[in-house]
Amino acid sequence: MQEHIQFSPETFTLDLLDQRYLPVREEFFSCATTDDVVKALRMMVVRGAPAIGVTAAWGACLALAEAQGGADWRATLAHLLEYLARARPTAVNLRWAVERMRRVWRSDQNMDAAVLLRLWLKEAADIQAEDVAANRRLGAFGAALLKDGDTVMTHCNAGALATAGYGTALGVVRAAVEQGKKIKVIANETRPFLQGARLSAYELRQDNIEVSVACDNACALLMRKGLVQAVVVGADRIAANGDTANKIGTYGVAIIARAHGVPFYVAAPTSTIDPGTAGGADIPIEERPSREVTHVGETQIVPDGVKIFNFAFDVTPASLIDAIITEKGVLGAPFDNSIAAALKA
Amino acid sequence: MQEHIQFSPETFTLDLLDQRYLPVREEFFSCATTDDVVKALRMMVVRGAPAIGVTAAWGACLALAEAQGGADWRATLAHLLEYLARARPTAVNLRWAVERMRRVWRSDQNMDAAVLLRLWLKEAADIQAEDVAANRRLGAFGAALLKDGDTVMTHCNAGALATAGYGTALGVVRAAVEQGKKIKVIANETRPFLQGARLSAYELRQDNIEVSVACDNACALLMRKGLVQAVVVGADRIAANGDTANKIGTYGVAIIARAHGVPFYVAAPTSTIDPGTAGGADIPIEERPSREVTHVGETQIVPDGVKIFNFAFDVTPASLIDAIITEKGVLGAPFDNSIAAALKA
Repeated sequence: MQEHIQFSPETFTLDLLDQRYLPVREEFFSCATTDDVVKALRMMVVRGAPAIGVTAAWGACLALAEAQGGADWRATLAHLLEYLARARPTAVNLRWAVERMRRVWRSDQNMDAAVLLRLWLKEAADIQAEDVAANRRLGAFGAALLKDGDTVMTHCNAGALATAGYGTALGVVRAAVEQGKKIKVIANETRPFLQGARLSAYELRQDNIEVSVACDNACALLMRKGLVQAVVVGADRIAANGDTANKIGTYGVAIIARAHGVPFYVAAPTSTIDPGTAGGADIPIEERPSREVTHVGETQIVPDGVKIFNFAFDVTPASLIDAIITEKGVLGAPFDNSIAAALKA
Repeated sequence: MQEHIQFSPETFTLDLLDQRYLPVREEFFSCATTDDVVKALRMMVVRGAPAIGVTAAWGACLALAEAQGGADWRATLAHLLEYLARARPTAVNLRWAVERMRRVWRSDQNMDAAVLLRLWLKEAADIQAEDVAANRRLGAFGAALLKDGDTVMTHCNAGALATAGYGTALGVVRAAVEQGKKIKVIANETRPFLQGARLSAYELRQDNIEVSVACDNACALLMRKGLVQAVVVGADRIAANGDTANKIGTYGVAIIARAHGVPFYVAAPTSTIDPGTAGGADIPIEERPSREVTHVGETQIVPDGVKIFNFAFDVTPASLIDAIITEKGVLGAPFDNSIAAALKA
């Protein structure tokens, strides 16, 4: 797949493959300002916790370019960084990436804007490259959990499009395929934004990996029929105890997987782990606009005036997770210990 | 709500409120021939096990009118009845209604067509009226299971639109509201055909019952949040042991409800029970066209060429069902006994 997050140092623009229009149209959304980036994040032009982090790192560079000319550029920049960090509440990678940029800045508060910009362009490029490298490593660890001939169910899109490339959950699949295993994927369509139907199916087909799509509510029947050997999903935030926030529906898939004896794996780089979040109850869950549920394209599917629940994420308790696959290895229960050790390593 | 299945003895047409266009357009689909009725059933102009049964009964009248002029009207009619009975495979009410019409005919094989037609028009009207009456009785039984202030989750549409009127699952809600209880409903949108979002929300709003819609995959989070006090669903076929086929996703909701200690009730008239089906494994599960999943209106949501799973139903094992609410009373485990007793009563 082509790179879907492209920063150009010549034009100082960040071009994002607009995921709202996939799989029907391949169109880039061009960001020249912090505000463009915040809008792109909020409108889900780009989504997926690691991809949000990489986008925010480049967004910080745009913020600096924007602030640089003004009177009090440091105050302006601090303000823009905070604006960026608040674009979406659940994925920890957003704050993590902004914080990593801030750390570079804090290393010398008197550094002038041009010097900082040079350091930040490198830092953003590093974050992007490290994410791909982390995905390749976690993919290799996770692939060992899959057997030749397995069908993997995934929810939402934790693929190349959700990361800087290669993917977390789909990185595990890609790595298993690279190891010569025959792996099929069932992508849950993942209402309301349909990341599974639109994005996972799109990128797996591009890589010639056999993919089927089913409505989210077919999950239990497909498992009952023995069509699923493992579930692998990504994560938006993993708490210190292993509780994992991910796309709405993940928690239900985990309950159903456990009821059928199907192993349930979370695949995420350690940048998705937030040691400052003790457990799932402490993870803020974003609520998104009703229109995402009431309309698909221009088609209205709910009568006017009906109340909509549109929580974007849910939390799967650690007790339902068989392993967390990271670039530092496969973590098992008790997760508080294995997570603390991985973060120290 | 107005009657959605309207037979006119003057014009000999069966007018069906076309459920494909709700909630946006209220349009009737007019059937003059058996073929029109079979098409209406297959395209889901009308759906819902009891509504399918009532439609088939009127369809038999149209079949007789069609056959009546011909040379060997009895052979033609037998053929048309079988064509009608095979329109959809899962709901037992379709075969049940056709069989009930056949029984009237069998009472005197030499009866002429005009006499049979008179008897059949009465039989179809009886089936329609009995269905509403059964729903009112089962509603009253079921309402006793709900407490003032409860929120009921329902899946698909087991309402007035799925029956001759009043509804099964939504009949339970309506009866509780008539008893003066304040009941809210969460309608799972029910992909791919969106019966919850489009139909349950539509008819509950018409009756001023407070309804919210959520994507199917929000079920586990909503239960975790304590927002659901009971699940009430309809059924397409109940086996002799209590295993219940209903709209795809029902089985997952039942697993998730059990995991959260939320009671799970099936509401259906005894005409939905098939004593000839021993258990869930014997219920044929209809697979429907991929396009129901790949497109919503004109919007394509899955890339071309991706394999689709579109099973229309799943089976909830009796072990996950807390009670089956029928017009003869509330049946509890062991269901093989309680079902046999209800069918004898």
